[in-house]
Amino acid sequence: MPKDLTLPFDLAQMQKIIDKYPTPFHIYDEKGIRDNVRRFLKAFAWAPEFKEYFAVKATPNPYILKLLKEEGLGVDCSSLAELILAEKVGFRGEDIMLTSNETPVSEFAKALELGAVLNLDDITHIAYLEKNLSLPKTISFRYNPGSLRSGNSIIGNPTEAKYGLTKEQIFQALALMRDKGCEKFGLHTMVASNELNESYFVETAVMMFNLVKEVKEKLDITISFVNFGGGIGIPYRPEQEPVNLEQLGEDIHQAYDEIITKGGLAPLTLCMECGRMITGPYGYLVTTAIHKKDIYKHYIGVDASMANLMRPGMYGAYHHLTVLGKENAPHDHVYDVVGSLCENCDKFAVDRSLPEIETGDILVIHDTGAHGHAMGFNYNGKLRSAEILLHEDGTTDLIRRAETLDDLFATLDFSKL
Amino acid sequence: MPKDLTLPFDLAQMQKIIDKYPTPFHIYDEKGIRDNVRRFLKAFAWAPEFKEYFAVKATPNPYILKLLKEEGLGVDCSSLAELILAEKVGFRGEDIMLTSNETPVSEFAKALELGAVLNLDDITHIAYLEKNLSLPKTISFRYNPGSLRSGNSIIGNPTEAKYGLTKEQIFQALALMRDKGCEKFGLHTMVASNELNESYFVETAVMMFNLVKEVKEKLDITISFVNFGGGIGIPYRPEQEPVNLEQLGEDIHQAYDEIITKGGLAPLTLCMECGRMITGPYGYLVTTAIHKKDIYKHYIGVDASMANLMRPGMYGAYHHLTVLGKENAPHDHVYDVVGSLCENCDKFAVDRSLPEIETGDILVIHDTGAHGHAMGFNYNGKLRSAEILLHEDGTTDLIRRAETLDDLFATLDFSKL
Repeated sequence: MPKDLTLPFDLAQMQKIIDKYPTPFHIYDEKGIRDNVRRFLKAFAWAPEFKEYFAVKATPNPYILKLLKEEGLGVDCSSLAELILAEKVGFRGEDIMLTSNETPVSEFAKALELGAVLNLDDITHIAYLEKNLSLPKTISFRYNPGSLRSGNSIIGNPTEAKYGLTKEQIFQALALMRDKGCEKFGLHTMVASNELNESYFVETAVMMFNLVKEVKEKLDITISFVNFGGGIGIPYRPEQEPVNLEQLGEDIHQAYDEIITKGGLAPLTLCMECGRMITGPYGYLVTTAIHKKDIYKHYIGVDASMANLMRPGMYGAYHHLTVLGKENAPHDHVYDVVGSLCENCDKFAVDRSLPEIETGDILVIHDTGAHGHAMGFNYNGKLRSAEILLHEDGTTDLIRRAETLDDLFATLDFSKL
Repeated sequence: MPKDLTLPFDLAQMQKIIDKYPTPFHIYDEKGIRDNVRRFLKAFAWAPEFKEYFAVKATPNPYILKLLKEEGLGVDCSSLAELILAEKVGFRGEDIMLTSNETPVSEFAKALELGAVLNLDDITHIAYLEKNLSLPKTISFRYNPGSLRSGNSIIGNPTEAKYGLTKEQIFQALALMRDKGCEKFGLHTMVASNELNESYFVETAVMMFNLVKEVKEKLDITISFVNFGGGIGIPYRPEQEPVNLEQLGEDIHQAYDEIITKGGLAPLTLCMECGRMITGPYGYLVTTAIHKKDIYKHYIGVDASMANLMRPGMYGAYHHLTVLGKENAPHDHVYDVVGSLCENCDKFAVDRSLPEIETGDILVIHDTGAHGHAMGFNYNGKLRSAEILLHEDGTTDLIRRAETLDDLFATLDFSKL
């Protein structure tokens, strides 16, 4: 089943929203997110315990996190700021996992204060914690399989990745932590990003289940939880198909029975830390066409820019685009849809077949619900946009206001000029 | 003469600075910038009038702009925010040029209010100005030569560039503006970025001088100023050589005499809008090694990240790196020097031969004076750093404070959680 291109609003509804909040802005579809999370959790309902730790970096908005908390998710944090955001939303204890690298003391301190699960990125972090803070009773280690696995095209070769411990170090680190009184152990890995091939995740599960088994055999340490990481992709292009979550759940179930249950290693808690697949397809960047330009190509200039969505400019990523109210018009014009940054890569679409666009038209850029607003910058003095939550009844809440020039200049003291 | 690797500070001086301002931060060498600007202006002292409009986007700090103003530079602005920054520093009138694209009304309005030179990106902007605001007496148009020129590797093929008017449109636009009472005309182009081959800029000057001549012949319009754009590169790698500014000045002088003087078109004001070459080599990102990690490779984790300097992660760009106090130690260790972002591209150096590094060592990343702090983001909840100005007498001023978590959360209202 190819990508779903249906929008949760039409032109008339959107015009009312724009009357209240000027473009550009990101709008998130609450019902879409909730339904998606429920479907995801259902696919793993067979597991004795399953916990999805939403990757806060994807959409670090407290109102999105609150909604995910209501659905039973935890949070995966990668920084002090994300830990504090989680705290403000009400997450505590093992509903928070800290997966960071080159971690400063302040970040570990906050995680310990919140009772979060520390997912250590390096064996030296044990001594670093002991020296500067203290060791927790629950610990997880990030495993980097190196040449034992090939990363996918986006995350790259694990031997070139800065993350995690080698297999030998995993054994050393677990034994060391047991000697130091640690009582609960977990293992984590992350070897793919934006991957649509579900077999990749099944292989990762098998790899981790075998590691759990090997740890039991070699060290007689019982692993309580494994975290397969995130990395489940979304279909950005209309012809792409989403990952079949039900099939993924079943395939991992089979591997679990085979290795964990038969191996006498059950119950084992399964965790994931998806971000993109949870919110990505349910966010939209809404922008207005403000200029039409015809030179060697035909351009539509919009009021959003790379500051609002970096992926096209930074990665050349495809994002689907709908001209509101012209969904069924013939797509007989070819445009580059561009933002105002003085960077030629600031193009939301290149050589895209679209209906004829006039200035004033509302353009909806799909799949901006993850790594969208979050990655924005202020280059060229551009301001980051508002974020709006669209409820099932059609009402909206402003869940982040747009930046102002005062925000942009907040770190400057003009008085000494 | 290859790149100058000399630093304007040593370890002892830097430790005193760090006592006052914790790492990471960008530090700018005032003397280096001033000497460089003077040398640049001297290379064009032969021209009847020469004006460098510093590209604010490169280093949008008012104290850097103030210093450049004292040296006689103008500013090239690409947004409303940059216009306001220029205004706060005291720039007015034709010392400001607005070179933007997909320009909203608010930005044109501010530029008109300041008396800035409008450098229009499209012929339709004439009608846009007339409809929404008014037409100025001085106007400039950005020329996109299309297939008549090949762009350099960074800026890409001009026919794929969203910027500027075609040659035919340049003639139409100039004639139209004359009919509408415009009194002073300029032409602009920008066909290279970070280019070290000076012949590229000489070719651009020749192209623009010939265009001035053609405009005179075809329309009997006298062009008062031409802006060659920016794009002069800097040697990021030690083996690279900077552009020979004196030679560049002489070569453009020769072309000026040949086409402009002999053609009876003198005096013609020459303008450029360099950013990178003005401040780039005189800024440094100073960061502390906080972790050492040995897995499949050897890593040094530092307290800066891509949030402080995007170029290595975004473009794979090389930045030279000095371990302070170990300048003369054997470079017999090979490291990846990495930031803490959960992106494997967050590496300031890959497979770099360096002296042995211990945690606590101070690392200086060179050439961050342009497109450094300016491009930073807050992805992963990371905060952007302070900026410090180092005066010739060794004293320092904090010219931008570091971001705080309150800054990061400024656009969020937690009260409704």
